[in-house]
Amino acid sequence: MKRVRLRELGYTAGKYSTGSQNSITDVNGVKVGHVTLQKDLQSSAAVRTGVTAVLPHGGNLFQEKVLGAAHVINGFGKTTGLVQLEELGLIESPILLTNTLSVPAAQQGAIAYMLKNNPELGGAHGTVNVIVGECNDGYLNDIRGMHVTPEHAIEAIERANAEQVEEGAVGAGTGMSCLGYKGGIGSSSRIVMFEQRLFTVGALVVSNFGRAADWQPGGWIQRNDCAAVYSDDPAQLPDGSIMIVLATDAPLNERQLKRLAKRAAFGLARAGSYAAHGSGDIAIAFSTAQRFPHLSAEAFVSSVRLQEGSELLNHLFAMAAEAVHESILNSLCKADGMHGHNGHYRAAFPYESLNDWL
Amino acid sequence: MKRVRLRELGYTAGKYSTGSQNSITDVNGVKVGHVTLQKDLQSSAAVRTGVTAVLPHGGNLFQEKVLGAAHVINGFGKTTGLVQLEELGLIESPILLTNTLSVPAAQQGAIAYMLKNNPELGGAHGTVNVIVGECNDGYLNDIRGMHVTPEHAIEAIERANAEQVEEGAVGAGTGMSCLGYKGGIGSSSRIVMFEQRLFTVGALVVSNFGRAADWQPGGWIQRNDCAAVYSDDPAQLPDGSIMIVLATDAPLNERQLKRLAKRAAFGLARAGSYAAHGSGDIAIAFSTAQRFPHLSAEAFVSSVRLQEGSELLNHLFAMAAEAVHESILNSLCKADGMHGHNGHYRAAFPYESLNDWL
Amino acid sequence: MKRVRLRELGYTAGKYSTGSQNSITDVNGVKVGHVTLQKDLQSSAAVRTGVTAVLPHGGNLFQEKVLGAAHVINGFGKTTGLVQLEELGLIESPILLTNTLSVPAAQQGAIAYMLKNNPELGGAHGTVNVIVGECNDGYLNDIRGMHVTPEHAIEAIERANAEQVEEGAVGAGTGMSCLGYKGGIGSSSRIVMFEQRLFTVGALVVSNFGRAADWQPGGWIQRNDCAAVYSDDPAQLPDGSIMIVLATDAPLNERQLKRLAKRAAFGLARAGSYAAHGSGDIAIAFSTAQRFPHLSAEAFVSSVRLQEGSELLNHLFAMAAEAVHESILNSLCKADGMHGHNGHYRAAFPYESLNDWL
Amino acid sequence: MKRVRLRELGYTAGKYSTGSQNSITDVNGVKVGHVTLQKDLQSSAAVRTGVTAVLPHGGNLFQEKVLGAAHVINGFGKTTGLVQLEELGLIESPILLTNTLSVPAAQQGAIAYMLKNNPELGGAHGTVNVIVGECNDGYLNDIRGMHVTPEHAIEAIERANAEQVEEGAVGAGTGMSCLGYKGGIGSSSRIVMFEQRLFTVGALVVSNFGRAADWQPGGWIQRNDCAAVYSDDPAQLPDGSIMIVLATDAPLNERQLKRLAKRAAFGLARAGSYAAHGSGDIAIAFSTAQRFPHLSAEAFVSSVRLQEGSELLNHLFAMAAEAVHESILNSLCKADGMHGHNGHYRAAFPYESLNDWL
Repeated sequence: MKRVRLRELGYTAGKYSTGSQNSITDVNGVKVGHVTLQKDLQSSAAVRTGVTAVLPHGGNLFQEKVLGAAHVINGFGKTTGLVQLEELGLIESPILLTNTLSVPAAQQGAIAYMLKNNPELGGAHGTVNVIVGECNDGYLNDIRGMHVTPEHAIEAIERANAEQVEEGAVGAGTGMSCLGYKGGIGSSSRIVMFEQRLFTVGALVVSNFGRAADWQPGGWIQRNDCAAVYSDDPAQLPDGSIMIVLATDAPLNERQLKRLAKRAAFGLARAGSYAAHGSGDIAIAFSTAQRFPHLSAEAFVSSVRLQEGSELLNHLFAMAAEAVHESILNSLCKADGMHGHNGHYRAAFPYESLNDWL
Repeated sequence: MKRVRLRELGYTAGKYSTGSQNSITDVNGVKVGHVTLQKDLQSSAAVRTGVTAVLPHGGNLFQEKVLGAAHVINGFGKTTGLVQLEELGLIESPILLTNTLSVPAAQQGAIAYMLKNNPELGGAHGTVNVIVGECNDGYLNDIRGMHVTPEHAIEAIERANAEQVEEGAVGAGTGMSCLGYKGGIGSSSRIVMFEQRLFTVGALVVSNFGRAADWQPGGWIQRNDCAAVYSDDPAQLPDGSIMIVLATDAPLNERQLKRLAKRAAFGLARAGSYAAHGSGDIAIAFSTAQRFPHLSAEAFVSSVRLQEGSELLNHLFAMAAEAVHESILNSLCKADGMHGHNGHYRAAFPYESLNDWL
Repeated sequence: MKRVRLRELGYTAGKYSTGSQNSITDVNGVKVGHVTLQKDLQSSAAVRTGVTAVLPHGGNLFQEKVLGAAHVINGFGKTTGLVQLEELGLIESPILLTNTLSVPAAQQGAIAYMLKNNPELGGAHGTVNVIVGECNDGYLNDIRGMHVTPEHAIEAIERANAEQVEEGAVGAGTGMSCLGYKGGIGSSSRIVMFEQRLFTVGALVVSNFGRAADWQPGGWIQRNDCAAVYSDDPAQLPDGSIMIVLATDAPLNERQLKRLAKRAAFGLARAGSYAAHGSGDIAIAFSTAQRFPHLSAEAFVSSVRLQEGSELLNHLFAMAAEAVHESILNSLCKADGMHGHNGHYRAAFPYESLNDWL
Repeated sequence: MKRVRLRELGYTAGKYSTGSQNSITDVNGVKVGHVTLQKDLQSSAAVRTGVTAVLPHGGNLFQEKVLGAAHVINGFGKTTGLVQLEELGLIESPILLTNTLSVPAAQQGAIAYMLKNNPELGGAHGTVNVIVGECNDGYLNDIRGMHVTPEHAIEAIERANAEQVEEGAVGAGTGMSCLGYKGGIGSSSRIVMFEQRLFTVGALVVSNFGRAADWQPGGWIQRNDCAAVYSDDPAQLPDGSIMIVLATDAPLNERQLKRLAKRAAFGLARAGSYAAHGSGDIAIAFSTAQRFPHLSAEAFVSSVRLQEGSELLNHLFAMAAEAVHESILNSLCKADGMHGHNGHYRAAFPYESLNDWL
């Protein structure tokens, strides 16, 4: 039986409307590509991993950069590329997502891709900053095997398209676990009309955090007589991670995008997380509203950004929280149960747990 | 009819047990004092404000400092004292809370108090760093009148005691609004047994954020056919603020306390916030486990801190989120409706809205 | 004998040309005002302090904000207002400078001034963020006496003008010490032609750092046989502070202004500092190139900023370092020796120490 | 003629004594290894690059971590591993240095090395955080060729030893340029006696910043009649980078190490830098005073750190600035001129420029 998304199950997260695909690709120009690696090796070892590439637009990303920012919710993680993003506020390459130990392979692939498409790169013409995020899929995947190659990263970039994002156990999400069940890739989007214009916020996550006991669809308030009691399940570590990518077509500058990225934590909280110690929780946000050339004859650049006091900013903040929350739920709803490394198994998220609460 | 706390209404937030008073003062040594200012002025103006002081311990705070840290969830606020706290990781004075425009008065009072109790302060012996947090109570309070004086701050410090914290429209919370209703001071605590020792996390908030539509006790997932739809209520601005103080007796160092402070955002999210643009949301955390002398004959200081990988750290993180969440709910449950400045009125939080959802 | 500035002594710091006044007020619109407090009290106590106000422009600063940023070089200090500056990137009030314990008085005065000139402030129309920086003048000044009043801050604001800044023992610099001698206020500016337009960077400092042994006009490289040897002078603490304000008319956005503020540390280093532990070294930068209305009918705002790769940015960085360096030297060259609190005395910086080295 | 170090030329930078080797390896336990790659390719292309590994101690770095911190002076760079370092304050692998586009190769090698030596790594036992810093050697090196392999990184780690660090055009410094001349690896150390104990600060740099006009051995103050005038040399870009590693045996905690790392900027300033826009200037500091086990039966860990107010802290700050400064000078003094990629040539730093000034 094919797994379906949250809304196909009859549920909705939040109040804002979704874009037409309810996917990060509803933000005009954004493209996503997956490479999924699955192979059963000898002696109970198994490859369950992959790469996902998020492209802010379909042009040459180095020549036409977009404004971006990151927020580290909890920094137990190995994401690369954030130093320059913080300093310059620009994204100039695809954003790659993969498993923790494959960050260098993905980075190598992205650099090779950028070099190939930008012959002037290197030397006096500068180099390229690549952002690679990661979660640890070592429960299901033979992560020590480092099965991702630079070519896989290039393939993920080249496969990127603007269709509804494939979700669940695909791409970087292939071997991930979330809230005690099989997690992976999830996506969602929100739209709002403001001054006769439509603005979109889209999210994509690689969900790999939490244990079953953290699942809180019904909220954190209970009647005293049926309140949950803390009980430790030593078999389930709350550690894990989540990588969150936020895209918007609203004209936010780099500082405002950092503010947007911070709202990802509020969507993450709605899904039950408290950002456990071992969880590398990182949000990266970009705006497609304007592109900035790598080199320009003009010393000064004109740009438009949202007035800070505009009510649209609060809409975008609330939409980001909702889209992240629903992305996480979609990653759970869509992922099939999976057998993997060392005989480990992650069950699919049981749909009835939604009913039980609501 | 006297307003009661969440648990007296029959509800519980979260899974961990509370301390004996379910109050930040359950952390041994922590003391809290309020000064409440209420006066009806001519021409519809009204004083609805105050000061709250949180003392990490009952000794001389300058001579015996505690480790501390702050996390700025959203920085649209005027909290003072964070520069030095970030650099040195020490709290060396009471933490004062008041309204936005009374920060200097509270700071002046706290400095005067510290000078009086530390004759060597000033000159070559250094000065003192005072932390003052604030929310804007200008909807109910004649905030332009700047009715708080330095003496009020001193009085709040001197009144501080270790009893269960008085909640609702008292102290700094007197004129605050939260989620469309009357907010103010709230507090809560959590305990956990770990290796035969009891560890406590306590929270105190000044709640002043959000609008009624943000209230989400039942969680953010609904059935499609009864899902809420975004609708703007122009009469209610989502702006506002929340000041959060976290105390623990667990031996966390300054970096770990910053991590703890970051978990306050997860409790805030559970109460419905997405950290609106105009909301100054700031968390300050300290540990009472060890005191550090201002001057010491010893050049090296020995201290004990939690091993980062210990499961206790995750307990403390989860406990902080719960305690902040319940503190907010207590601030709502305990605050009476209030008439104030300019004929404005904030209704008390309707208890039945808890029943409606749960 | 009247003390003179560095260039009047026949010396130059750096390579760029200065503006016409070699003062922060060379940046069009910037105004500076001082209030100097000097009084001999009974029993060897003495008032040696004051307030300095820096206004980014002569209009209503709350209604017409400018972009700004701060960089904390070393955070052993009590500067207030940085939380909101970091979040929103805007300066909306005069920047006040005073002694450490008078921060609340200066803040109170600045708030009162802003309330008076902005009747709609308070309540739903928001409050105002005031930036107050400080250094500890307790060696010469009876700092415990808290002799600065809110009225002094207002007076400093109202006296602000665009003339060459008065330097030495005036305003906030009245009681300060620097590199073992009398310090205080210093200012300088740099200009550069770029694409037929003139761009200016101006600096103003309150110098209060270092000891005589840190003075390094001749550079840090010596011949082996005449190399200095570290020797402790227990009479001179290296602690102290420096407050640095940078102004420019170049169109830098808030992120770029933070980058500019970071270059203040390079000017500070040239003057001999290594940012001693007890030194609160903070730089605040703003651009006068564009003003942003507090409220606007427009939801989107257009602005111009420098292309990051433009060579002008490096000019501005280098100019900032030079202007900060020369501001410090001017503060030393202009300040007379002073008797003060507790019979303390700070000698004037000996001009011949410049000759000795060069 | 063999190039020599600064002190062999008869010059000294600063006032503190050096350790016995005047090298980062004077900090007990610290080891450094280089792999140098030089090859002339067809058609004027040339390999001029390498890898340098800095090991905080000679044991298993993953099992016995050391406290560490980083400070980003200017973030136009691709250093990886800083997210987790900031969150946890621990260094758990060798620090690798290489060229910008070889970061993934070095990271891949370091991960492989750590996996091999820690069979339990991966899966539920977590992964490893590797720090790789870089500068752009594309002027002399065929950087697009990505000639560094993971094996080179492993080799650099395995070659690491505690001898005086080889300087100049070796390891990561092979193809670097500094202040218009040939730069590369430099190292230096400082010692101080404090309470009968000897404390050491060591620095290692990969110098690749600035242009000849930035060279300022004689300080930034000149007589008016011989003052330098700004003049642009379009042939020399100020862009570039510097990677700085600081080691100390003093017991500093992670927050104090970040403070130490910030003082690297003061040493960099003394060498003439103002942190040009395109310069990725990053400092990483660690303390060898205590090792922290990856896993521990103990939930609480006892540690000793320096009292913040101890004069030793200021010594360490000043020593760090001096050691960084002299490391840069050593990198210049030791590097031979080099022909490289595209027919480019970097001359050796002319010793007489020291005499000209001093």
